[in-house]
Amino acid sequence: MTEPLRPPFEDLRTLREELTQLDVLGVAERLGWLQEAERAKLFRLLPKNKALEVFQLLDAAHQEELLSGLRDEQVLRLVQEMDPDDRARLFDEMPAMVVRRLLAQLSPRERSMTARLLGYEEESAGRIMTPKFVRVLQTQTVEDAMDRVRRRAAAAETIYFLPVTDDELRLVGTVELKDLLLADPHATVGEIMKEDTRAVRVDEDQEKVARLIQAADVLAVPVIDSEGRVVGLVTVDDAMDVLGAEEGEDLARTGAAEPLGRPYFSASIFYIARSRMVWLLLLVVAATLTVQVLSTFETTLEAAVGLALFIPLLIGTGGNAGAQSATTIVRSMALDDVRPADLLRVIARESRVGFLLGAFLALLGYVPVWLLFGQDLATVVTLSVVAICTLASLVGSLMPLLARRFGVDPAVVSAPFVTTIVDATGLVVYFLIAQAVMGL
Amino acid sequence: MTEPLRPPFEDLRTLREELTQLDVLGVAERLGWLQEAERAKLFRLLPKNKALEVFQLLDAAHQEELLSGLRDEQVLRLVQEMDPDDRARLFDEMPAMVVRRLLAQLSPRERSMTARLLGYEEESAGRIMTPKFVRVLQTQTVEDAMDRVRRRAAAAETIYFLPVTDDELRLVGTVELKDLLLADPHATVGEIMKEDTRAVRVDEDQEKVARLIQAADVLAVPVIDSEGRVVGLVTVDDAMDVLGAEEGEDLARTGAAEPLGRPYFSASIFYIARSRMVWLLLLVVAATLTVQVLSTFETTLEAAVGLALFIPLLIGTGGNAGAQSATTIVRSMALDDVRPADLLRVIARESRVGFLLGAFLALLGYVPVWLLFGQDLATVVTLSVVAICTLASLVGSLMPLLARRFGVDPAVVSAPFVTTIVDATGLVVYFLIAQAVMGL
Repeated sequence: MTEPLRPPFEDLRTLREELTQLDVLGVAERLGWLQEAERAKLFRLLPKNKALEVFQLLDAAHQEELLSGLRDEQVLRLVQEMDPDDRARLFDEMPAMVVRRLLAQLSPRERSMTARLLGYEEESAGRIMTPKFVRVLQTQTVEDAMDRVRRRAAAAETIYFLPVTDDELRLVGTVELKDLLLADPHATVGEIMKEDTRAVRVDEDQEKVARLIQAADVLAVPVIDSEGRVVGLVTVDDAMDVLGAEEGEDLARTGAAEPLGRPYFSASIFYIARSRMVWLLLLVVAATLTVQVLSTFETTLEAAVGLALFIPLLIGTGGNAGAQSATTIVRSMALDDVRPADLLRVIARESRVGFLLGAFLALLGYVPVWLLFGQDLATVVTLSVVAICTLASLVGSLMPLLARRFGVDPAVVSAPFVTTIVDATGLVVYFLIAQAVMGL
Repeated sequence: MTEPLRPPFEDLRTLREELTQLDVLGVAERLGWLQEAERAKLFRLLPKNKALEVFQLLDAAHQEELLSGLRDEQVLRLVQEMDPDDRARLFDEMPAMVVRRLLAQLSPRERSMTARLLGYEEESAGRIMTPKFVRVLQTQTVEDAMDRVRRRAAAAETIYFLPVTDDELRLVGTVELKDLLLADPHATVGEIMKEDTRAVRVDEDQEKVARLIQAADVLAVPVIDSEGRVVGLVTVDDAMDVLGAEEGEDLARTGAAEPLGRPYFSASIFYIARSRMVWLLLLVVAATLTVQVLSTFETTLEAAVGLALFIPLLIGTGGNAGAQSATTIVRSMALDDVRPADLLRVIARESRVGFLLGAFLALLGYVPVWLLFGQDLATVVTLSVVAICTLASLVGSLMPLLARRFGVDPAVVSAPFVTTIVDATGLVVYFLIAQAVMGL
């Protein structure tokens, strides 16, 4: 692998010369690192075919940006040549007006395929499937099936994974090209096909389809309509993109940010700040709870300022324990190991885990705190650590499960929100324990 | 898709009956939800061929657990039938003694292939590649190449993506089976092959290889040795598994936990607690810094107890801003958009982003804090918010970049560690500003 050129690019002319030397993936990578205006400028310099291949490797957000810098006939040529599923994803990113104009200009066949895909729900199997597949018939001989595959190969997105149907187009099995190649040419497809392969409905969630492809180690999964007829295939490359996007999103939200959706250096500082602002502001508003809690206990605090010393440590530890639970549960839900119906079992398990963690920390911490700050504070701090860890793990597991029940992405209420809630409730617990132990 | 059965399984006999009805993926899923002892018990009931297929769908950790519950001859039969790359991954999970005994019992061909893979670094392309690929010769006709593919198909892991070599086995290009099928049978492979396709070296990092497959939308990438000879292929299903594992790991670490590596309900409470304990303890030790900082400023705190009210809010906000930066940078490094060499540019950008965020929050917060708590506290809190957000974003971006430079996984020092460091330094900033403004 060649070492890619890094921004900033001081000399566009050098870059332009380099672009002609690079393979399509290399060009796509470099375009991704540029600012919008430079990107269109350079893209226009590519030879026609290379431009098309590069364009198909970009993700939808970048494609959209790029098109807005190109002339109408270039746009139409690129869009006409795309696979229908990629085109549907691009259209999602574009203003409705532009989409309508482009659809009208497409060839009738491409237009109808794209319109059908756009008719399915966003993030559904129907939206990401390719309608350009080859099906073979159960009653065909292997030889005839191979002929059919050869004839249709040029127009298909994949020919390695083939749904097998009956005469009414209903899915009855699947066969891999490899099996056709190795089989007796006079056998029927029905004799060599795999019957127990899984299919998904057009309205199935895209992440579930992607995880199915991953778990079953298959190249594609057939998509069927309500009558059991095959209408498309979701292929492994689309599954990878879906999982990449979903996991990027979960990761960003666990870190209290929205996914950038573009390479870091191609985003401006204002763009990055804006993508974080809403989250940060929401969390600050939630954190004003802690100010209220502390105001309530101000007299206790005045009577024993030493209590303040452990505030950051206790709420920090609670926040970390809560984040651990939330992260585990969000991930387990994504992998379908845990479902909203498991709520009671999960919070019972997590609060026990939290108790174990808190008790362990309390045992380790009691003597050092006693020696440095006296027995009263040692008792208050260690009791609080047990209570806060238990509470934090409970809240950390409860929030994502409740979120899913109410149709919210669980990652949205994971680590950062859990931490903020645990901060406020943890402080209440701490001061109540202090009042009881110290008799304040 | 059928609705999978959920634990707990009260009736093993019902489950056993169900298992015979299920497809292999369904069986694999159900096994994953069971406890170790039940799993082996049920697995032994499967018919031989189904057992093998199910076994191949499990991940290495589960395979290892399962094998420890089976008899020697069953173990050998399963291991003998695996693909060499999957076998190498399984052997990584097993005690060295057991691996040596199993290796000795394998057929000579399988033994030598596995031993070669085990000779490469963990997490390298060599470790995850399959040596069971079919190469075709540049000088062959398409017809001859197709014959060769047909003859070798049964023993190969994939035949859809074919490296093209010269007579010395050196990689000169690649060709897809689809292209061979559609080409003139009398053309040479050299005439129809793709020349500018990327290859990776055996010692390339597995995540880089997986991201290459994702970005280039290919079914496989050829792996070459130092002489440029093809020694294997990394296929798209392996790439998906690598990315899934790496992202699960990053996500877990962003939430201060280690990845469980097994379905949630199959892990015991002690297992889960242990997987979080080390992290939590390290973070508590780091958090004792905050106790020291507050002890230092105890007289300031006694003079103005009101300052304590804003401690959780300020350090919480700093922690969130730091987590946002850290998460963005960890993700951008994983996608190779940001590299350690970009350190200065990144921290310059991130501290400006942090300043913008802090300034925005300060503007919104000044009046409310003034009205409720007086002008002095309003000045101290808002100045602190600006300073802490700037500092947090700087630390949040610096830590993962430094980690990578020193060869540590950047996710390890992401959100939770950044938060803890920002807690302590943020408190110093807060009290210094308070002393200056309030003249304490």
